Amino acid sequence: MNNWSNLEAPLTGRTCKPRAAGITMIIDKGLSLTEIQALLELNSPFIDLIKLGFGTAVLYPERILTKKIHLARDYAVNLYPGGTLWELAYWRGATSTLYSRLRDLGFEWLEISDGTLPLSPIARLHSIEEASQAGFQVITEVGKKDPTHQPSAIEIARLAWADLKAGAVWVIIEARESGAGIGIYDQNGQIRPEQMEILRDLPPDRVIWEAPQKHQQAALINLFGPNVNLGNLPSTEALALEALRRGLRNDTWDINGRK
Amino acid sequence: MNNWSNLEAPLTGRTCKPRAAGITMIIDKGLSLTEIQALLELNSPFIDLIKLGFGTAVLYPERILTKKIHLARDYAVNLYPGGTLWELAYWRGATSTLYSRLRDLGFEWLEISDGTLPLSPIARLHSIEEASQAGFQVITEVGKKDPTHQPSAIEIARLAWADLKAGAVWVIIEARESGAGIGIYDQNGQIRPEQMEILRDLPPDRVIWEAPQKHQQAALINLFGPNVNLGNLPSTEALALEALRRGLRNDTWDINGRK
Amino acid sequence: MNNWSNLEAPLTGRTCKPRAAGITMIIDKGLSLTEIQALLELNSPFIDLIKLGFGTAVLYPERILTKKIHLARDYAVNLYPGGTLWELAYWRGATSTLYSRLRDLGFEWLEISDGTLPLSPIARLHSIEEASQAGFQVITEVGKKDPTHQPSAIEIARLAWADLKAGAVWVIIEARESGAGIGIYDQNGQIRPEQMEILRDLPPDRVIWEAPQKHQQAALINLFGPNVNLGNLPSTEALALEALRRGLRNDTWDINGRK
Repeated sequence: MNNWSNLEAPLTGRTCKPRAAGITMIIDKGLSLTEIQALLELNSPFIDLIKLGFGTAVLYPERILTKKIHLARDYAVNLYPGGTLWELAYWRGATSTLYSRLRDLGFEWLEISDGTLPLSPIARLHSIEEASQAGFQVITEVGKKDPTHQPSAIEIARLAWADLKAGAVWVIIEARESGAGIGIYDQNGQIRPEQMEILRDLPPDRVIWEAPQKHQQAALINLFGPNVNLGNLPSTEALALEALRRGLRNDTWDINGRK
Repeated sequence: MNNWSNLEAPLTGRTCKPRAAGITMIIDKGLSLTEIQALLELNSPFIDLIKLGFGTAVLYPERILTKKIHLARDYAVNLYPGGTLWELAYWRGATSTLYSRLRDLGFEWLEISDGTLPLSPIARLHSIEEASQAGFQVITEVGKKDPTHQPSAIEIARLAWADLKAGAVWVIIEARESGAGIGIYDQNGQIRPEQMEILRDLPPDRVIWEAPQKHQQAALINLFGPNVNLGNLPSTEALALEALRRGLRNDTWDINGRK
Repeated sequence: MNNWSNLEAPLTGRTCKPRAAGITMIIDKGLSLTEIQALLELNSPFIDLIKLGFGTAVLYPERILTKKIHLARDYAVNLYPGGTLWELAYWRGATSTLYSRLRDLGFEWLEISDGTLPLSPIARLHSIEEASQAGFQVITEVGKKDPTHQPSAIEIARLAWADLKAGAVWVIIEARESGAGIGIYDQNGQIRPEQMEILRDLPPDRVIWEAPQKHQQAALINLFGPNVNLGNLPSTEALALEALRRGLRNDTWDINGRK
């Protein structure tokens, strides 16, 4: 924002890379090397993490996946496989195969979740420790993907605290790709205030809120400020989110200073 | 999926290219040469057909269109013009002009439909035969684009059988780009069970279900298996659909084996 | 459309570039140089204006922004910053800083709006004159971004006429990126007939209707013809809109000639 000095953005204090807070996590549903290079060329200052959605990592040719991981790293972006891949390995009893495979490919981060599988609290903590010991930075995800089996806010909070204590770097609060009928969101994608009442006490720097919809991103920025950690953004929305974070868009720019 | 041996995907038996079943058809609303090259670089193993949406084929410069057809073919993907173009030619009484034009450009496939125009059963069959004799692989589409003039499931089934008998390679069941209020889908995009009850007896390898929405793709995979033919996918969804086909996503991964 | 002579499109009279009417304005939420080059390579005949959404202009590195402006101009497309940037400058009392900055970067067009800020009629007219005198082609936008503070159709019409008289080249009728619950659209994105009854008397060549949704574009083409000015299209929809404008899609192709 050099040379726009008189035009300071309405929301101030936005962090720069490498940032400890204010993380933006993008979901990648199949960007080729050419596409991700084109994306990061402009958007890399505004993207910290890229999740390879679901179990798509196994669908890549090895050569392309390795290049993609390194290309992202050249732009100071960490690429990691979605939690469904870890769940598959756990289900197959093959987490150690997974870890060595991910290491060979060049991944340094991974996600542990139980969105589909059942996972006991003990097994969850053990898994976080195991993956950390295998050399990975661990992100966990809390929440179930089935809208009819949603944990309560208290259960989400309890799991999140336990994950952090076990060594997770960040805890993601699940909202899927749709952001409706899951976790903190009701069927219309609105934040449920009684859920947020409980969850807002989680340590803000350590929680990533999945917020695929613009009004969700705006609501969370208005609640937590410009450096709330947000995830599951479509790759095309990175710059638009950065505008929201800085109040450069109506939804987060409060001209009366009340937001 | 080499080297992920211990991590076999939950749904097995997915076909590889060139495939007789398990076709994925993408709708292309205006990808440039650079964009389609970037897309296919990673996604070509998961895309079989690309439809140039509506009548957009006539909006391309000839040089670009010819290159695009050949570029797709280099990736084992067949590009073909949307049915609206054929309907326009039929309406103008100019199908033979269309056929020679498409041949000159390099198209080998085309689509015959009556989504907008009325077309008698006799004229429909004659058209399929005429296009086949003109050297094209013919895909037909059954269904009306106007939500207020939808054929019954029995009419759809009857037309589909007749089209196949007349020489159509595949029959597409219309759902438009939205997938709501058309054909097998109700206003909310849900599959109407009473429609599917009748249509599920069509030969599965010969029918392509338009399924633009993720939950529609998942429902059809759960009903017909990983190698159901699906169409009208946005180009950005090819890898995500492949994950659904292999159970690498919650919606089609049944951990209890009941799906 | 050379060499498709027998296949004249159903809607005729579509203008070519440089066009005085039939403008298509795209909203750009963060395309890199590589991405915009790839887009314009095919779509430039169908795009007249590209708006850098919201205040995103300040988030670009100067070198990239300058190149982007010139790259668009090479394709006969005018790039301009969204009105929120102007509102920020006005709010900071720094419009003259803004004008010299925009000029240095290479912008020739800008947008004046009061979607977020209050702006008196006098200040609005003065601002249009000031920006024109600073050498810019001025586009204005009429409408409020807050769904709970929407101006009446009569107020919109009055402002639009005043803007044009003060020197605005085009007046945009606000609909935001969503096209729902704003301006001429109801909560479901449908055109409110009582609003359009009043607004359809505005000079058609001078008004750009924001119409992000396909059914909105189709309704406006069916009302005003192929050369209605339309804005806030996603960049991926340029060719599909051109198909609508020429009747190459069911929604605007009236086979009975009644549309």
